[in-house]
Amino acid sequence: MITVEEALERVLAHLPARRVATVGLRNAVGEVLAEDVAAAEDSPPFDKALMDGYALLHADVAAGRAEWEVAEVVYAGALPTQPVSAGRTVRIMTGAMLPTGADLVVPHEETESRDGGRRMALRRVLPGMAPGWNVMRRGASGRAGEVVVPAGTRLRAQAIGALAELGRVELQVWARPRVAVLATGNELVPCEREPGPGQIRNSNEPMLLAQLRQFGAEASGLGIACDEAGELQTRIEAGLKSDILLISGGVSAGDRDLIPGALARAGVRCLFHGLNLRPGKPLWFGTHDADARRTLVFGLPGNPVSSMVCAELFVGPAVRALRGTSETGWRTFRAALQADVALTGDRRTFFPAHWTEADGGRVVHALPWEGSSDLRGTAIANGLIDFRQGGRTYAAGEIVDVVEL
Amino acid sequence: MITVEEALERVLAHLPARRVATVGLRNAVGEVLAEDVAAAEDSPPFDKALMDGYALLHADVAAGRAEWEVAEVVYAGALPTQPVSAGRTVRIMTGAMLPTGADLVVPHEETESRDGGRRMALRRVLPGMAPGWNVMRRGASGRAGEVVVPAGTRLRAQAIGALAELGRVELQVWARPRVAVLATGNELVPCEREPGPGQIRNSNEPMLLAQLRQFGAEASGLGIACDEAGELQTRIEAGLKSDILLISGGVSAGDRDLIPGALARAGVRCLFHGLNLRPGKPLWFGTHDADARRTLVFGLPGNPVSSMVCAELFVGPAVRALRGTSETGWRTFRAALQADVALTGDRRTFFPAHWTEADGGRVVHALPWEGSSDLRGTAIANGLIDFRQGGRTYAAGEIVDVVEL
Repeated sequence: MITVEEALERVLAHLPARRVATVGLRNAVGEVLAEDVAAAEDSPPFDKALMDGYALLHADVAAGRAEWEVAEVVYAGALPTQPVSAGRTVRIMTGAMLPTGADLVVPHEETESRDGGRRMALRRVLPGMAPGWNVMRRGASGRAGEVVVPAGTRLRAQAIGALAELGRVELQVWARPRVAVLATGNELVPCEREPGPGQIRNSNEPMLLAQLRQFGAEASGLGIACDEAGELQTRIEAGLKSDILLISGGVSAGDRDLIPGALARAGVRCLFHGLNLRPGKPLWFGTHDADARRTLVFGLPGNPVSSMVCAELFVGPAVRALRGTSETGWRTFRAALQADVALTGDRRTFFPAHWTEADGGRVVHALPWEGSSDLRGTAIANGLIDFRQGGRTYAAGEIVDVVEL
Repeated sequence: MITVEEALERVLAHLPARRVATVGLRNAVGEVLAEDVAAAEDSPPFDKALMDGYALLHADVAAGRAEWEVAEVVYAGALPTQPVSAGRTVRIMTGAMLPTGADLVVPHEETESRDGGRRMALRRVLPGMAPGWNVMRRGASGRAGEVVVPAGTRLRAQAIGALAELGRVELQVWARPRVAVLATGNELVPCEREPGPGQIRNSNEPMLLAQLRQFGAEASGLGIACDEAGELQTRIEAGLKSDILLISGGVSAGDRDLIPGALARAGVRCLFHGLNLRPGKPLWFGTHDADARRTLVFGLPGNPVSSMVCAELFVGPAVRALRGTSETGWRTFRAALQADVALTGDRRTFFPAHWTEADGGRVVHALPWEGSSDLRGTAIANGLIDFRQGGRTYAAGEIVDVVEL
């Protein structure tokens, strides 16, 4: 059986080509930029006042001048019409364009208005009153042609602001992969329905769709297929139109585990089936190539927790890689176990857990878990403890790796 | 001037009442549950096979029996019709209901089918073959009436799965606060337009809308208001229909800084104006109460980086508190400075920064930053370094607090 690392490597080695999509700036938060965005103009595009005050000549201050004639008032968004020269100042607002000649802005609170605003007197001379004081020079924060937001940037609000300033209202980003989810099993009823005897609700579809959205995919459900070869075939063919197809159920060794056969008939090439993992041992993975387009196909175990763990460990990295983020792998950290955990079996185990921040680091608590079909126990999970080997007791206080959910 | 902590305390002490909203399970990922969700039934609702194999009596194995008669095959979703008794077994699939009498499931690979499937022989006796082996008992993962997902849980995929299993297709969650954004300033043009001389694009609206979405708010833009009292009044009244109104610009001491007056006329009570913070000193905060409904009003400085920092430090916590998350405050961590940072001025400073994971902890790099209007320099920021006092040089390697963006 292959290891978890080998399996992940095999998935990431077979990704389809990434696609570029165009999005409006207002919908771009969270997307990953697929182009370098450069500035068309200097920033700021003109010398600009950083304070409300008076624009004047530093030479006047250096020469000990105490009073100035106020030539005009310049508001942000308006153009100065009067130059500044010896003895002449302009009252100016934050963000407004500096008048010709001026080389510093004295803040309002350091001045006194006289003669009904027609004259201004300086209160005191401060050591900081040098040329450029409270002035942002044209191009100070960036020159035309400079890359402002590089390709690969995940667009947070700060980048959205910078792109808006550049007037970039449309952007090239990496397309979110389209992922289809097909649940299989005669025992399943849609979660809107009351299950009959022996039946259970299809919790996997809503859970997987939620996980996929958390990964950043565009996810859609294909409903429930019953365990019948013809119906499976039709649904699988529909699913192969997506970038990734997840099928839950039907991949272990039961009589009605029809998925591996149905996938083979649909022309999906198997790259692995089964790995050293608990829960999730029967995971099936393959690729389908047609019309110069590739679809990744994951056959997830039908048990909810197995499905969830496999999606987290293998589908998440694939989706993130297709979205162009640099953080492709699992987001892991180290934490101290809150209580002993006794592991039976020898497989590598990813145990549903809840972690919290504590003084001196994080503490993780393995959730009471009745096995791979126990979603109730894992409802509040926010991590998976990565127990690298089974068959031993991990003691309270021991430091373990945790995959963040 | 009040401190950052005092300001935040004042904001959180004046929150409007939280509202409850109903969402469909399929749109609930990321929402915060406003009700305890309990199970209506036991989970699993019946004793259930955890493996494909044979359901039989443990007493038979203990007595050394080697062969059984196979009474029927039970698939998941079907009901067993034959009881199990001494010498009689039932072939059973994962997830299927255990037949009456059976108390363990022997996995398929430990058995041999004989006589065309009519009989089954056990290959070997394993020490683990005790009553309950590979059986999940009715109610093992939870009893009817037990709370499965408590109020206050942020709904991750795992909780969505558990809620689907319970058949909870509609949920009570805390409503996302509605936040309106109004940009003011005669110098602003919409970011779709080419600015004329002295004009700049309104980058604050798209940036603040993106931030608000990151915080979890339902955000909408009210466009640009010019610096004219009548127009401001109309727009402010429209904004007061929201839970939170953000106004950017017009709160410092300039001649056209009309916002404090306009807010007073609109009946908004000022709770603070100005604080010991760089950038963001002129921040204005108040509340408006009418028709038993409260609106929080933030007057943000018009400079983009000031606006961004104030939104992050004060609006984010308010939105998170209204959404019912337990993580109301800033998400901070400690990191080592990558290079010296010389701070002028004596105010507490939140410096745009980029941090990365490194061996032995996180490393943070202060971004080249030309002051509070420099969005370009901060485009790739993913954190804010919290320099608790200005006026000194922080040395490379020094450990600082960082607010995660």
